[in-house]
This record gives sequence, C-alpha cells and structure tokens, in this order.
Amino acid sequence: MCETADNAPATTTTEDKVPIAPAIHPRNPYGPHPGDYLSNVSNFQLIESTLREGEQFANAFFDTEKKIEIAKALDDFGVDYIELTSPAASEQSRKDCEAICKLGLKAKILTHIRCHMDDARLAVATGVDGVDVVIGTSQFLRQYSHGKDMNYIAKAAVEVIEFVKSHNIEIRFSSEDSFRSDLVDLLNIYKTVDKIGVNRVGIADTVGCANPRQVFELVRTLRSVVSCDIECHFHDDTGCAIANAYTALEGGARLIDVSVLGIGERNGITPLGGLMARMIAADRDYVLSKYKLHKLRDLENLVAEAVHVNVPFNNPITGFCAFTHKAGIHAKAILANPSTYEILNPSDFGLTRYIHFANRLTGWNAIKSRVDQLNLQLSDDQCKEVTAKIKKLGDIRSLNIDDVDSIIREYHATLGTPALKPVDGAEPVEPIAKKAKTDSN
Amino acid sequence: MCETADNAPATTTTEDKVPIAPAIHPRNPYGPHPGDYLSNVSNFQLIESTLREGEQFANAFFDTEKKIEIAKALDDFGVDYIELTSPAASEQSRKDCEAICKLGLKAKILTHIRCHMDDARLAVATGVDGVDVVIGTSQFLRQYSHGKDMNYIAKAAVEVIEFVKSHNIEIRFSSEDSFRSDLVDLLNIYKTVDKIGVNRVGIADTVGCANPRQVFELVRTLRSVVSCDIECHFHDDTGCAIANAYTALEGGARLIDVSVLGIGERNGITPLGGLMARMIAADRDYVLSKYKLHKLRDLENLVAEAVHVNVPFNNPITGFCAFTHKAGIHAKAILANPSTYEILNPSDFGLTRYIHFANRLTGWNAIKSRVDQLNLQLSDDQCKEVTAKIKKLGDIRSLNIDDVDSIIREYHATLGTPALKPVDGAEPVEPIAKKAKTDSN
Repeated sequence: MCETADNAPATTTTEDKVPIAPAIHPRNPYGPHPGDYLSNVSNFQLIESTLREGEQFANAFFDTEKKIEIAKALDDFGVDYIELTSPAASEQSRKDCEAICKLGLKAKILTHIRCHMDDARLAVATGVDGVDVVIGTSQFLRQYSHGKDMNYIAKAAVEVIEFVKSHNIEIRFSSEDSFRSDLVDLLNIYKTVDKIGVNRVGIADTVGCANPRQVFELVRTLRSVVSCDIECHFHDDTGCAIANAYTALEGGARLIDVSVLGIGERNGITPLGGLMARMIAADRDYVLSKYKLHKLRDLENLVAEAVHVNVPFNNPITGFCAFTHKAGIHAKAILANPSTYEILNPSDFGLTRYIHFANRLTGWNAIKSRVDQLNLQLSDDQCKEVTAKIKKLGDIRSLNIDDVDSIIREYHATLGTPALKPVDGAEPVEPIAKKAKTDSN
Repeated sequence: MCETADNAPATTTTEDKVPIAPAIHPRNPYGPHPGDYLSNVSNFQLIESTLREGEQFANAFFDTEKKIEIAKALDDFGVDYIELTSPAASEQSRKDCEAICKLGLKAKILTHIRCHMDDARLAVATGVDGVDVVIGTSQFLRQYSHGKDMNYIAKAAVEVIEFVKSHNIEIRFSSEDSFRSDLVDLLNIYKTVDKIGVNRVGIADTVGCANPRQVFELVRTLRSVVSCDIECHFHDDTGCAIANAYTALEGGARLIDVSVLGIGERNGITPLGGLMARMIAADRDYVLSKYKLHKLRDLENLVAEAVHVNVPFNNPITGFCAFTHKAGIHAKAILANPSTYEILNPSDFGLTRYIHFANRLTGWNAIKSRVDQLNLQLSDDQCKEVTAKIKKLGDIRSLNIDDVDSIIREYHATLGTPALKPVDGAEPVEPIAKKAKTDSN
C-alpha cells in the first residue's frame, strides 16, 4: 500500500522489537470458516468445461486433435470431471465426444444437454460417464427461450433423468438463470429430481450477476432440501465468478464448473487458475494433493494459443506481474519474509517472484539486494546514496535493469575499494558478498 | 448454458404459453439485500488510485503530462476522489502532486503516505484536499516491515492525524494487511482514531486473499465501533477484489479504492470497470446518475496504452467478447429479449451486443436474423435447412461472416424466387423483409 520505505527513521528499536514468533498465525485466517459445518472448501471437485462452455467462447474452434490434446492436459492436471459439448450440437461434436470417451482418462467424462429425450439418447450412446441436463427455469427463459411452464419442465426432467439412470451413468439436473427463478419453483423441482436419484443438482448464474451472499443463501437453502451433491456454474460478467464459487463451497456446494482462463459465453465463467489461487489460500494441502499446479501455466498457454488470446496481464498466478513487487516498502518486507506481501507461494506453481527495483518507487533494501546479486560491496549508507541517484533518474524516465546496474557499477567504481572509503557516518563495511551469488538477471 | 436450440420440437404450445408479463421482476434480485440496513450499495463513493496504486504496477511510468491527462479523464468520468503517489516517494512525485492539485478538478485530490510526520508535512504542503495515512498492523508487517508495536502505531497515528486535521483537510487512517491483524488491536486503534475525528478509517486486504463473508464480518463489526466512514482496499491475487468490494458496501463500508483495469502491485486491485459492472447491476439509477459510463472504454484505453498492456480479452464490459453471444439457444433468446442472457445493457456503456452466428454451435434463429439483415426472404424451414449447411461447414473449420453469407446467398439463389418455391412441408413464405433493413455487418 505504501510507496516508500527508505527515508523513514530507524525502523526498529529494542523495546519495539517483536520477538521472532514461532508461528505467526496458528489458524489460517483465509481457511474454512469455523461456523460453516457444511462447508466443502476442503472437499471440493472440479467440473472442467473448457471443451463445452469454452467452446461457446467467441474465438473458440477446437478440432478433434486439439480437443484431445486439451482433454489429456486437463486429465493430467487432475480435474475430476471433463465436460464436453452436446452431441446434439453437430455431427462432429458427437464424434469428438465418442473419441474422448475412448481415451481412458482418469477424469470422468460428461456431456451437457438440453432437457430433452432426443439429446439424452444421443448422449448416452457416446459412452460418457455422466450427463449434465439443463433447462431454463427463470421467467425470462420460460417466456423468451423454450416457452415451457414448471409442470412441463418437471415432467421432462423426470423422463430424461430416469432414462439416463437406466444406463447406469451419472446424471445432473441443473436449472438455468437460477437467481432470477422463483425460489419455490426451484426448490420444488430440485426436491423432485433429488427424490428420483440424481447425482447432482446444479445452480447456474447464467447472466453472471449473482453476488456472494446471495449465492451463500441459495446454496445453504438448497443444501437443506436435497441430499445429493450441489454443483455451481458462475458467469463472470460482473467479476464475481471466483468469489461466488468459493462462497458456494462455504454454503455446502461441492462441485464448481470452471474453464481454462474462464473462456465461455461472453466474458466467460470461473477460471480454473483463479479458483486454484483462491482455494490454495484456503486449504493448501488439499489443493496440492489433488491438482498439479505447476502444469497450470502450460495448460493456460495451450488454451490461449488455441483460441488466439493472450493470457491477461492481470491474470491470477500466471499474469506477468502476479509475483512482481515494486514499491520500496513492499520490496523491503518481501526480502525479509515473502509472506508479508504474498499469500500465494510462486514455487507452488513452478513460478518465481520478482522484485522490481528499476523505478522511482524503489527503496534501498531492493537496491541492496541487487548490489548483492552483482557481488559488489556497499554499506547500507552507500546503498541509500546510490538509491537516491536511481530514484532521481527514475523521476525523469522509465528505467530498465541495465540503467540501474550502470548507476550502481559507476557509483561503486568512484568509491575505489569500498571497504577503505566508508562514507561519513557509515559503519565499517561488512563483507556482505562472502559467498558467490549468481546474477539472476 | 446449452449449446443448441434448433432441432428441439415445437417450442411453444398454447397451454404452456406464459402471458406477456408486465414486469418480470418487480424487485431487482441483484439489488441491495433487504436485510442490510447499513448497506451503502446505493450510496457508495470511489477513491480512484490509478495514479498511486496504479503507479506501483510493474509497467507503470507516468510522466507529469500523462498524470494530468489521466487525472482529467478520471475527473470527467466522475470519480469522487483521485489518490496520488506520496510526495515523499520522489521529488517529481511531489511536484506532480502539486500540479494536479492546481488543476481545479471536481474530484477531491488525496495523497497516500506512511504514518510519519515527515511525510505528513510534505503532504499538506502540496495543497491536497486530504491525506490517506497507512500503517501495517499485522504481525507480519510489524515484524518484517516497520518493526513497531501497537502502542507506537497508535501514538504515531494520533500525532499525524492531529497535524493533518489542523490544516483543515480530510484525513483517513488505514491499517495494512487488516485481515491478518489481531481483531482487538485493529478495533482498538480504529476506535482511537475515530474519537479524534478522522474522516474515514480504512481496511486493506494487502495480500489479496480475503473472501467475501470474511469481509462482511469485519466491516460490519467495524461499523458498530466507529462513527466515521469506512473505506476498503482489496488486492486481486485470488480473484475476489470486485466481490469483496461489493460485499464491503453491503456490510456498511462507503468508499472503495479502485484503479483503471485494476493496475497496482502484483496483479492489482478492484478494477474501476469491473466494479461499475457489479454496481450497475445492483443500482442502475445511482450509477448512471454519478458516473459517465460511456467514457469507460476510452479511459481504459488511455491507461492501457500508458502502461503498455492490452485490455484483457475477458475484461468486464470492455473485453472484446463481453456482449458476444454464440450458442444457438443464447442467440435465440437474446434476439427475443436481451435481458434473458444479459444483465448489463451494452448501450449504457456506449457499446453494442453482437450475435455470433458464424460457427457450428449456431442456431436457426441467429441465422434467420442474419437472413433478415441481408434483406433476403427465407421461410423458417428454409432457414433451418441453410443452418444445417452452415453447421456442417462449421464442423470442418472455423467460419467467418463471409463464409456464412456466401452459404446463405448461394442457398437463396438456388431457390429462385423463394415465395414460389417453398420447400416440402414449409408453410407459405411470409414476406418477412417488408421494411428495408440495413446490413449491420
């Protein structure tokens, strides 16, 4: 939050000094809420929908080979389910569905269909492990999309569910636009399908507008009505898809629909990577035990390339600056203990942090660290002096690492042998670069 | 959610038909929660920090001219406050702060400093309308950053606050890393500074890891302790910065820190545009009365260019596909009533929606709409037939609009005069293109 740390007075006095604490927080403040007895934050599953919702992304066209490559990468990452486009969407969609079912992946394969017997027959014939059925229940969708009333919806649902169950595969029933549906209608139909034995019921924020507390209330209410698992699907139109997913798990949902980079209709759904960031902060052990996080970057690059987009600059975890620290006071603390300004450990994702020191907001601790990397010897006061020079140039123009290194080297050269020329008031220079350090530049 | 709509049986029967409802939802389900008596969802203010937090973004280097251009654009957009980098950060930062204070903007100008008298003296001398003071209160920051205990923090805070107040300008006191701070310590210091008359107290999720219900609980608790306004600052490391901001307002916070595209340390903070999406869904009238939303795109482009990034493909509102509808069933309903799959109205932002019809997931309603745009006459059954041809080619390769138009025109040509050659089973063709329609391509 604060820009500079350098020209502050002495930062530690003896009486202020906090003793080295054995563990600063015995309980993770970002972990499961102790009052949520039904929370699945430490017991969630992923339904990965890059090959279904993601295919609805404006730029997406996946041929069979690309679909198989993505499915294998998702399986390797460790997702629990892979959801595919309906075999009713097109002939090739049907063939691709069959082909992916035959790969023998560890992940269960699902396909996503309308609540209609024609689609259901096509779906079970592909060899999938389960079928995700959806129908619009909001008055908007009932009026402007399929034009059915709730009785019709319930009848159609029961027929399709019993048909799919008779093939001994999993079945999920989801409403669409759930947050604009009548609550009593919703609970009625969920109760009906739960009784006839669906594996999961789904809540969908189809327009991408639900907020977290609204999600918590609906999920918790539904949790008291059905005995099966609850799955949630959140669009990201108003930027809450990750938070809504987390809050749904707190309320008792168990499964979250995700796609790589969140690709889907409009600006998409809960992104796999962003949700991993959220979940690892809540339960690192669970996430690390299930998912190969170090493969996340490659997975995102694979999909980004396939749909011709760049990974957003501000993407959680893999955005180019997600682990870059710039302001002086941040850099200082990060160098002392990364946990001060990082809740995620970049090495969990096969990534590294970066202290950005080539700018006018830099501080002497960051520059001192660079001096060390260059294997030069400067006292703290000398580091402060050279930092002032760097900040001065940084006020005039944007700096790069070479600029900073030149200033440091030039300053060092003018000092001659620094140990012999301490600046006024500086303590004798300690040999800080005793062990050879590699230049990480 | 569902891919296809076309080969479904007749979509409306007389008894199913929902009567045209006068208003589908009298109460906005995404609006303020009726149980939140202290909610500021309909009474919030923005502290725009592109020129402070945003300057801590890895790529940011704003010269004076660019800072002034951005400040004027933010002011024109209608933000309530503009926050600037500390004058203690560098000499040019101090001069820029003075220059922006002299612009005579409607927005109040703030600068953001450490809790230290040296910084406070520099700040009040710049002519700002208010000073935002921050100090780390978590044990992490107390141990690894400034090394002070809570007594020292309280004493320093009181001194700085009274000094700033004596200059008759606004003063905010914020903790840093608030969610990892001891709750009793936090409430103690907030109570102290509230008593001596700060304008605002601030909660900061400095590491970007708070979740919405945790935010709600802390804000609501603090709301019962202080009488001044509450400001919140959320980093986005785990993708919850927009949702946390919204939930903070529900809990009684009044001011949210934002930056354009969310730029800031690491992957940044609550983005201005994303928060506008969230808030307009909750209270359209309030948002439209305060902020010039149709300037959002230009504002984002201005900042994106200045820091050398692209607007993310999935950015709320201004991402290239935020209002693009692709799957057949979505396109069908959007054509009948945009509210079915859109909670945001693109025209509020000076943007337009786009029905993506050139792909294998397309449906005959989308194609019929394109046929209309081309001013051709085809019956519904003919549209279904030509849609099947388009989907077939779409199975083989990625399509563009020219591909689709060629198929439609070719099909139309083979029919001769369509009214004379209805295909088998089709009803007589109605003259659907009576009024000339412009080709929107």
